Amino acid sequence: MKLLEEKILKEGKVLSSNVLKVDSFLNHQLDVAFINELGEEFKRLFAKEPINKILTIESSGIGIAALVAQHFDNCPVVFAKNKAGINHDGDFFHTKVESFTHKCVYNVMVSKAYLHPGDHVLIIDDFLAHGHAVIGLMDIVHQSGAVLEGVGIAIEKASQMGGSIIRKKGVHLESLAIIESMHDGVIKFKDNC
Amino acid sequence: MKLLEEKILKEGKVLSSNVLKVDSFLNHQLDVAFINELGEEFKRLFAKEPINKILTIESSGIGIAALVAQHFDNCPVVFAKNKAGINHDGDFFHTKVESFTHKCVYNVMVSKAYLHPGDHVLIIDDFLAHGHAVIGLMDIVHQSGAVLEGVGIAIEKASQMGGSIIRKKGVHLESLAIIESMHDGVIKFKDNC
Repeated sequence: MKLLEEKILKEGKVLSSNVLKVDSFLNHQLDVAFINELGEEFKRLFAKEPINKILTIESSGIGIAALVAQHFDNCPVVFAKNKAGINHDGDFFHTKVESFTHKCVYNVMVSKAYLHPGDHVLIIDDFLAHGHAVIGLMDIVHQSGAVLEGVGIAIEKASQMGGSIIRKKGVHLESLAIIESMHDGVIKFKDNC
Repeated sequence: MKLLEEKILKEGKVLSSNVLKVDSFLNHQLDVAFINELGEEFKRLFAKEPINKILTIESSGIGIAALVAQHFDNCPVVFAKNKAGINHDGDFFHTKVESFTHKCVYNVMVSKAYLHPGDHVLIIDDFLAHGHAVIGLMDIVHQSGAVLEGVGIAIEKASQMGGSIIRKKGVHLESLAIIESMHDGVIKFKDNC
């Protein structure tokens, strides 16, 4: 998506050959109008799927998923939690997710009340790198018996293989910008290579 | 706000005399259309303030803040983070927030790049109980030199005093539903008492 690529080139900061900071618009400060444009594009890409629920993971997926859901008939958003609180009763689906950013393994959970066999789920997240978060969410969708209709990612980093692993599973994965490389601070997108 | 009170009565679960679970629509699953109605109400309540930025805290404030921001001319949302990642460079405002839910103290941070003296900030959060999160965010706004225009909360629990402390500081605080008590599983709202 040209608009996202331009935004990344304008506002993104390459901190190393595999770390891109886009927190001016995507995951610390949120550019609400811009993220709605991403939502419109996701709707175009997943127009044929009967999506009735969006699943994401805390924290940085939540704002994006909430805005994107508006383009899918205001369907409910469920965000997986990575820690339990005192106000969690009842049954949960559990999975483990290794975090590249935080260098730890999270126990990720979704209440069984909010994912059912009748659901048609689109997973949304800000980044796809090694794919651990998305694969964890896919595991939760599988446990619930819901149908996984697809995965929508804002920025995929091709060098870290998560996208490749998920596509090989036959999942309909759409990444709005795919970064091929960031050598010497120069961002190259997949389309441009 | 009648609509929110009715939703709480219909979908909320009282887990103890001071724990209310509303994760069917507010902080695990998000009812996107409904939260937009809360956004409209916040806009009505803060119509006179020249708000140009919304500040919240991860995780459960994010989805609400992102949707609410649309009713404030799509102003940017900044969410305070409670852990550092590898892609955080630069300077941050820091504060400490005690979590009632998670029984710990978080180091909460906002990048100095996203809060400035010229900003007119509305703090948004899902719950107000003891007020630690909001008071921490107020501290960050103060450090930044921005103007705090107000605090908008979905559900305030009056028995836990956060609202009272914040109002005494002269802050324009609006809670869309104020719970007076939850004895024996019966929710009483402030207006009804």
